[in-house]
Amino acid sequence: MAKSRFEYVREFEKRDLLLPQTYIVVRIDGKNFHEFSSFYQFAKPNDIRALKLMNACAKNVVLKYRSDMILAYGESDEYSFVLRNDTTLYNRRGDKIATLFVSLFSSNYVALWGKFFPDVPLDMKHLPFFDSRCISYPTLRCIKDYVSWRFVDTHINNLYNTVFWQLVQKCGFTTREAEQKLCGTVSSEKQEILFSECGINYNNESEMFKKGSLVTRSGEILHADVIKLIDDLFEGY
Amino acid sequence: MAKSRFEYVREFEKRDLLLPQTYIVVRIDGKNFHEFSSFYQFAKPNDIRALKLMNACAKNVVLKYRSDMILAYGESDEYSFVLRNDTTLYNRRGDKIATLFVSLFSSNYVALWGKFFPDVPLDMKHLPFFDSRCISYPTLRCIKDYVSWRFVDTHINNLYNTVFWQLVQKCGFTTREAEQKLCGTVSSEKQEILFSECGINYNNESEMFKKGSLVTRSGEILHADVIKLIDDLFEGY
Amino acid sequence: MAKSRFEYVREFEKRDLLLPQTYIVVRIDGKNFHEFSSFYQFAKPNDIRALKLMNACAKNVVLKYRSDMILAYGESDEYSFVLRNDTTLYNRRGDKIATLFVSLFSSNYVALWGKFFPDVPLDMKHLPFFDSRCISYPTLRCIKDYVSWRFVDTHINNLYNTVFWQLVQKCGFTTREAEQKLCGTVSSEKQEILFSECGINYNNESEMFKKGSLVTRSGEILHADVIKLIDDLFEGY
Amino acid sequence: MAKSRFEYVREFEKRDLLLPQTYIVVRIDGKNFHEFSSFYQFAKPNDIRALKLMNACAKNVVLKYRSDMILAYGESDEYSFVLRNDTTLYNRRGDKIATLFVSLFSSNYVALWGKFFPDVPLDMKHLPFFDSRCISYPTLRCIKDYVSWRFVDTHINNLYNTVFWQLVQKCGFTTREAEQKLCGTVSSEKQEILFSECGINYNNESEMFKKGSLVTRSGEILHADVIKLIDDLFEGY
Repeated sequence: MAKSRFEYVREFEKRDLLLPQTYIVVRIDGKNFHEFSSFYQFAKPNDIRALKLMNACAKNVVLKYRSDMILAYGESDEYSFVLRNDTTLYNRRGDKIATLFVSLFSSNYVALWGKFFPDVPLDMKHLPFFDSRCISYPTLRCIKDYVSWRFVDTHINNLYNTVFWQLVQKCGFTTREAEQKLCGTVSSEKQEILFSECGINYNNESEMFKKGSLVTRSGEILHADVIKLIDDLFEGY
Repeated sequence: MAKSRFEYVREFEKRDLLLPQTYIVVRIDGKNFHEFSSFYQFAKPNDIRALKLMNACAKNVVLKYRSDMILAYGESDEYSFVLRNDTTLYNRRGDKIATLFVSLFSSNYVALWGKFFPDVPLDMKHLPFFDSRCISYPTLRCIKDYVSWRFVDTHINNLYNTVFWQLVQKCGFTTREAEQKLCGTVSSEKQEILFSECGINYNNESEMFKKGSLVTRSGEILHADVIKLIDDLFEGY
Repeated sequence: MAKSRFEYVREFEKRDLLLPQTYIVVRIDGKNFHEFSSFYQFAKPNDIRALKLMNACAKNVVLKYRSDMILAYGESDEYSFVLRNDTTLYNRRGDKIATLFVSLFSSNYVALWGKFFPDVPLDMKHLPFFDSRCISYPTLRCIKDYVSWRFVDTHINNLYNTVFWQLVQKCGFTTREAEQKLCGTVSSEKQEILFSECGINYNNESEMFKKGSLVTRSGEILHADVIKLIDDLFEGY
Repeated sequence: MAKSRFEYVREFEKRDLLLPQTYIVVRIDGKNFHEFSSFYQFAKPNDIRALKLMNACAKNVVLKYRSDMILAYGESDEYSFVLRNDTTLYNRRGDKIATLFVSLFSSNYVALWGKFFPDVPLDMKHLPFFDSRCISYPTLRCIKDYVSWRFVDTHINNLYNTVFWQLVQKCGFTTREAEQKLCGTVSSEKQEILFSECGINYNNESEMFKKGSLVTRSGEILHADVIKLIDDLFEGY
């Protein structure tokens, strides 16, 4: 069709190509989910409905991009999608991948909301949204370490949050007291506090809370020790 | 909190800052909307419900980022948001801006769908999604030309599509015949064909179809001659 | 010619385009010139021969790229070349511009060395080299401020260095004593110290030392008050 | 020292970091060396003095950055420096690496010129200069293929140029006739033409011409079959 004299503005667009033959992570992260989860009164420290909703959205993204995907891993309000190093998805344009993934994820989140929160209507003033970024990893070692990093983070966050909220909700600590009690403690000490103060054995907590959620290429959702499985997860890639 | 030995993977993340003191366009574009609009049987060449839904989503994005926004302009399945050159939104990180805007837009699209398509349930296999990109423009002249470019594009596309579909729907042309009839014609010839073949005066077409939709900072939606208004639209920026 | 199976490695190259319609600064900076100037026993705080050599190199770069150039400004071991906002030099590829400018500057520096240091042969173990970067500026205001910034920097550095070395060389201060004497002083106090301690009026210092060197498009070298001249320097751009 | 109100212009500078854990190639390429070699009457198709000068410059760059370097490989007016994937040179800032390498190379070229061209003074209007770029390669396979690519290119170019110039210089062909004679021929046919028309066995040509020059970390210069050696060259990296 006819070109107008304004066409030149297209030249200001940047090309954003991810380095060939690198593994690509697309990490999606909830925007202001602290506030969002307050507004919708999510259970603390973990809301099963919200986690299952995140998993359902991630599963749909994985299945949509199945041939490019190795796995996805999520916890809390974030999800990381790991793409093969030989993917040519959207010609490896980082902006296309980051924006289409987050858009599809967001659409799913809203469309599936009612299934997981049947009694909680979405409020138009408090819609969920997410940021997203692409990261390139040159080696299998790096990409395994990336997934391990998120797994360890899940553990650290969940242990802290579990003890903190048990102290507050079950044992009558103020939030400040709970914070001080936990300050400077290592993992084993936190587990000990949880047991001695609240009578709760961390090992008996839900696997999904402790280990996050792993979505396989076929859309299966697992809650497993990622570090132990890491070589298996990337076998053949 | 404790840092794991996997933390180093954070160093692979790129910083993506837009040049200071440049106007920023965030353009959102429907992914596979040809197929999407077929599936949901959108009216051709324009579906009023779909355009109003796009406008409602854009309006919500504009109001959310009102203090950074100059205006937004949309047509068909795309929308451009124009941000002030002095915005410091998300520290001018291009990836943050592009992904949060498209995510919020997508959430709105799904959440508002039922309002504009009350009898058409969304199908989980056919959810809407959009790509998004940020573009920097250094001068007022450029950013005005950007908006003018999208306006001219709206005109060119809508005129073509209007005549094409009238020929097909009203005058019994096959799509190939309509295509050939229009091949190589300029605007005035297309309007003449529309009038002589289908008895329709293009001037009487809906303003929204002919001129696209402009969302002002206050959330007002206009269908106006952008080129004539362009200096007014950017007065004070 | 025949393509080999190794050709694919070209796809790893990045395109690095500077935003259209922005002013471009190429700033060249001496690498380890503290050591370099010690080795060749440059006069402190300013070596006339070395500054004139820098100016001669800059002049040759300016004349080579005359049609793209607005001006160049230099002090000490650095030089900034300011290119028109409408330049299409090397298709505005930032890496090409930065590397070709610094390469040409370096060749000139070595080739012209003997003219300015006739009695000092270059030592192969101590050759000069420079880094270089491109920076985009969207507005005339910014690019004027850039040049003003370098000018102010010249003033601040030269005043400090002049007083410091006079205290050391003429008035018998140790370097530590001179440092302490100047610590926390403002410009007027430094000038007063210079006058009262060493009997030197800063105003009588060489214009090249106090004001740096400005190279015009025609290759003329000026030592002038850049701030006062700034609007004139950019008139017409 | 005091900050001026112009300091803000620093924020327009971009950070340009190469992806961690990738091999880095810095490729330097002569600017307008066709013209440069004409002006200084380089022998065609290969000038031994010019190639040895390139090698001497490359050797000095290699020795300067020895601890980061795997090898360098050059032909004609270009040289590629291959850095370890774990290098932290200049914090892996691509612009720093590209510009400092080319600046040092250029200084060496001018400083060493007289040693290799003792009877040919450099003309200030015709100084050598080079462009330079950094490329990241994520795997050992890629970086080996990069070096193999340059080696194959050396072979292809040198065979063509050798036959072409022998036809012209020794056998009385015009340049057009030589071009047509070689058009569409494969390597074996070119060698056959060289032998049958000019009586020259390509195998007897200089190893440096046929194979390019490889500079090892210790500064040794080899002319060897890179493809055969490729695994050895990268052993341990």
